[in-house]
Order: sequence, then structure tokens, then C-alpha cells
Amino acid sequence: MVREVAAALFVDPFAAMNAIGLVAFALVGATKAIREEFDLFGVTVVGLVTAFAGGATRDILVNRVPLALQSPVEIALGLAGVALAIGVSVAVDSADDHPITLLSDAVGLAAFATAGAIVATDVGVSGFGVVTIATINAVGGGAFADILLDRSPFILLEDFYASCAVLGGGTYWVVVLLGASGSVAAAICAAVTVGTRIAAVTYGWRLPTAQVLRTSA
Amino acid sequence: MVREVAAALFVDPFAAMNAIGLVAFALVGATKAIREEFDLFGVTVVGLVTAFAGGATRDILVNRVPLALQSPVEIALGLAGVALAIGVSVAVDSADDHPITLLSDAVGLAAFATAGAIVATDVGVSGFGVVTIATINAVGGGAFADILLDRSPFILLEDFYASCAVLGGGTYWVVVLLGASGSVAAAICAAVTVGTRIAAVTYGWRLPTAQVLRTSA
Amino acid sequence: MVREVAAALFVDPFAAMNAIGLVAFALVGATKAIREEFDLFGVTVVGLVTAFAGGATRDILVNRVPLALQSPVEIALGLAGVALAIGVSVAVDSADDHPITLLSDAVGLAAFATAGAIVATDVGVSGFGVVTIATINAVGGGAFADILLDRSPFILLEDFYASCAVLGGGTYWVVVLLGASGSVAAAICAAVTVGTRIAAVTYGWRLPTAQVLRTSA
Repeated sequence: MVREVAAALFVDPFAAMNAIGLVAFALVGATKAIREEFDLFGVTVVGLVTAFAGGATRDILVNRVPLALQSPVEIALGLAGVALAIGVSVAVDSADDHPITLLSDAVGLAAFATAGAIVATDVGVSGFGVVTIATINAVGGGAFADILLDRSPFILLEDFYASCAVLGGGTYWVVVLLGASGSVAAAICAAVTVGTRIAAVTYGWRLPTAQVLRTSA
Repeated sequence: MVREVAAALFVDPFAAMNAIGLVAFALVGATKAIREEFDLFGVTVVGLVTAFAGGATRDILVNRVPLALQSPVEIALGLAGVALAIGVSVAVDSADDHPITLLSDAVGLAAFATAGAIVATDVGVSGFGVVTIATINAVGGGAFADILLDRSPFILLEDFYASCAVLGGGTYWVVVLLGASGSVAAAICAAVTVGTRIAAVTYGWRLPTAQVLRTSA
Repeated sequence: MVREVAAALFVDPFAAMNAIGLVAFALVGATKAIREEFDLFGVTVVGLVTAFAGGATRDILVNRVPLALQSPVEIALGLAGVALAIGVSVAVDSADDHPITLLSDAVGLAAFATAGAIVATDVGVSGFGVVTIATINAVGGGAFADILLDRSPFILLEDFYASCAVLGGGTYWVVVLLGASGSVAAAICAAVTVGTRIAAVTYGWRLPTAQVLRTSA
């Protein structure tokens, strides 16, 4: 299966990254809604919003009709993620803190950062635009789900979450500038994003606050 | 008057549904803001946002400039709903729980689900796209108003609210697939949405939660 | 420097107003996030969102790719505002209530209301559309930042904040209707918005609530 995914990555990196991200983020979002005791309709909505909101925002920003409204395949992938979340929540306690969910989240973050960087590069925005669209594609779904659940978006509170997508998107842009093919840039972007995210969780990386600067001033 | 509305429905179902939805949702949104003791500017803004946010999101998704920015008639309808809300709030206690407001909400939900299904079908998105755009058109205004009022959107907590728009939008798509005209599909979609919503309120319909599945597993 | 700004205003009023607004609102947004003890990444994100969200919403509404994604100059201006906010917060206590921040906010509000009115007039929407886009451009960034910080948007609670942008946008539209050039209309719009805002803060202007109407009924 790893071999097939690797092959798909080279044939159509956007489709592969997008499919991985949709299943992973639908699982993560639906798991959060199950923890909040939403009904099955609410769980499905939060799962699909988490999966689709980042990509839909990306599509609106580059001025096209969101893919999710055009392709039934996209919906099937999102619903598969929701079904997986229900299965996991029936099987284990505290599914939203379980390593399966944390790993899905890191994988979805990397897949969507890469999908966003690919679309932005195709459209021809500036380097900052590539990083911004990669980051919005990666964190938009989670941020929107948190707004629906009436929490402050964790992406602003969690150290080194969105930062991983920024690093991944920036790497994609630099690697393409250096002349690499889109497939190579996609593989490196995904690796940087998922690698820095897993390292951040494992080693508890943090960024300084302005209060720290003031204390040292 | 019922006869004129029925005639308008057959001449231009979108315009009729859109007009009904604008007045009904501006009334509902302004009533909520009055309950929260917002000033008249805030009441007008929340009323207009409730009336326009769903349709504007629909227009952005199908990649066109929102109707509300182009037509003064749309604004007049929204302001009429806000004025009605102020009148109702002066006349009765707890206007936001009054049957007039609950009925306006069900009628607005049905009218906007139908308006969304018509636009989506004209644009030619997938069946899932028709249901999604109908639902976003129907519940987007209320969800956006709740975010402005800093509440978790009630559409996720209220059983069988958005579900009614999903059923209506799905019915529209099936009826058009079966070969009916847009006017017939619009009438059936509106009837299904408002009928299931009123039945849900009357009989207290609920959807199961994942916790129920887990308890039975 | 006042002379250069005045000259720039006549050469390209949109570019001048947009640049002033970006620096001012990035400063205001970043200062709020510093007060909330966000890390430097969070501070930068909230600053840039406050600077760019209003204009990006304006661009999405008039159906074009947001300027912020296309021009590196825009980002440099936003980052300059964030850097200023960090400097101010190191230098003074309670930077978010300091007169520098309150004045920046009034100036940014006026600059963005004017930028929005210029774009809307160029696109050719209705008079209501001009006022709406001016207001969204002016208050969108602050409202979006409040949603990220999980507060009810202060623009709905603060008397005479968004109202100033509504007055400025309306004035722009009337002045253009009367045959004035875009530069003259821009100068008057900016003066009306910043003047009414400073007067509202100084004299504590308030709008009546519906409860007042009811009491008098």
C-alpha cells in the first residue's frame, strides 16, 4: 500500500495529498464532535467541515468553485473519515486524545499544506501567497471546526502547529524555485510538515511570547 | 395574497423564495439581537447578516458577486424584516420564543433551502453540491449571526434543523432528476423543508448520538 | 511627511489609503494578541489577519483574487505594523488601551472605509453595495480577529464604531454622485470617518436600543 501511495504521489501529487487529507481531517473533526456529544448529523457536519473548509477557502481565494461541490469522490472520502471516527470512538476511550487521532491530525496537516502549495503555485501567486494558501488549506478546517464548537481556534494557542504548515509551504516554494519538479517538491513539503509536527509534539517545542521579550528588555 | 405568492412562485420561483426568506430571516435575526439588548445599529446589522449571509456564501461558492450588493430591492426587504422585528418586540414579551418568530424561522429555512437548490441546479454542480448549497443558503445566516453573538451555532445543537434543509435540497434534486419543472421541484422542496421542521418542533424529533451507539455496542 | 501623504492621496488614493490602513490595523491587532499572551507566531497571525481580512473579504465579494496574495509590498506593510506593535508593547503598559493604539484604530478605520468605497465604486455596485463594502473593508479585520480570540465582535457592542464607516462610505457615494473626483471623495470620506470616530470616543456618543423604544411606548 505504501508503494501504491508513492506511485500515486508521482502521477498526481495533488489528488493523492487531497485524498489523504480529506480522510484524516474528517476523522479528526468527527472525533472532536463525538467527544462534545453532538448527534450523528452534527458529527457528520463537523467532520465534513473540518475536511472541506480549508480547501474551500483556498478555492474561494484563487477564485474558483470549490472542488467539494463538484466531485462526488470528495464526499465519499470525507464520509469514510467520519465512519472511521465513529468506529474508533466505539472501540477506545478518549478517542480525541488517542495516538491514532494525533497521528491523523499530523498527516492531514502535511497533506493539506502540500495540496495548498500545489494549487497556489499553479495559479501563480507570490511566494507569500504560496505559504499563505498552503497554511490556510492546512489549518482552515480545524480553525473553522473550533469556531463551530465555540472555542478559540487551537491553532493560535497550540505551539508549533500552523508553524509546521508555514515551514512546509515555504520549503515547497524554495524547492520549486531551485528547479525541482512538483512531485519532488510535494514529497519534501509533506515530509517537512509532518516531521516538524511530530517533533514538536514529541519534544514540546514552543515559540517565545512578547512578554518574554519585555522581561529581557 | 396566497394566490399572488403562488402565481409569483410559478413565474420566478427563485425571486419569490428569496423575497420570503429575506423578510423572514431579517425578522428572526433582529429579534435575537433585540433580546441581547444591542443598539438599533447592532439590531439592523444582525438582522441583515442573518438575511444575507447564507445567500452571499452561496454566491461566493458559485463564484459570482452577491445579489445583495447589486439590488436595492434586496436591502428594502431585509430592512422590512428588521422593522417587523422591532414592532413585534415592542408588542409582545420574549419575542424570540414567540410562535411568530418560530414560524418565520421555519418559513425562512424552507424558502432559502429552495432558493439555494435553484441556484445550484442552474450552475450545474453535483447532487451533493445541490444539497450542500441548499443547506448553506438555509442555515448560513443563522450560523453567522450566532458567531457574531458569540454562541455555538444552534444549527449544530438543535436536532432536526439543518436536517430539514438537507431533506428539502435532496428532494429538489431527485424531483428534477425525475423530469419535473423547476417550479414544481421548488414547491415540493419548500413543502418538505417547512413540513419536516414544523413536525420536528411539534413532536420533538431527535437524532441519535455516537454515545448511544457505544452504549448499545 | 504630511505633504507627501497628501500628494500620494491625489496620485493614487487607493494605494495611499490601503497602505495606511495595513500598518495601522496590523499594529492594533498584534497589540490585542500580545495582551492575550499569544506567542510571536500567534501575534503575527492576528496582526496580519486584522490587517488583511477586511480587504480580502472585499476582494472575494467583488470576485477577484485578494491583493494580499499577489503583492509582497502588502505583506511588508503588515509586518511593519506587527513590529511597531511589539515595540510599543515593550515600551508602555496596557498598550491595547494606549492613545497610540486608539488613534491607530481610528485612522485604520477611516483609511480602509475609503479604500473599500473606491474599489466598490470602480466595480459598479449599487449605493448600498458601496456602503456595505466600505464598512466590511473597515471593520472586517477587527471582527475576524475577535472571532479568532473567541470574543463577541466589539464592532457590534461598541457604540459608534462601524457607524462611522457607514457614514464615511455613504458620504463617498453622495460626493461622487454630485460629480466630484475620486480623490476629493476619498479625502472627504476619510475625514468624515476619522472625525466621527474621534468625536464618538471623546463625547461618548451612543445609539438607542429597542428596549428604550419599548419603555417609551
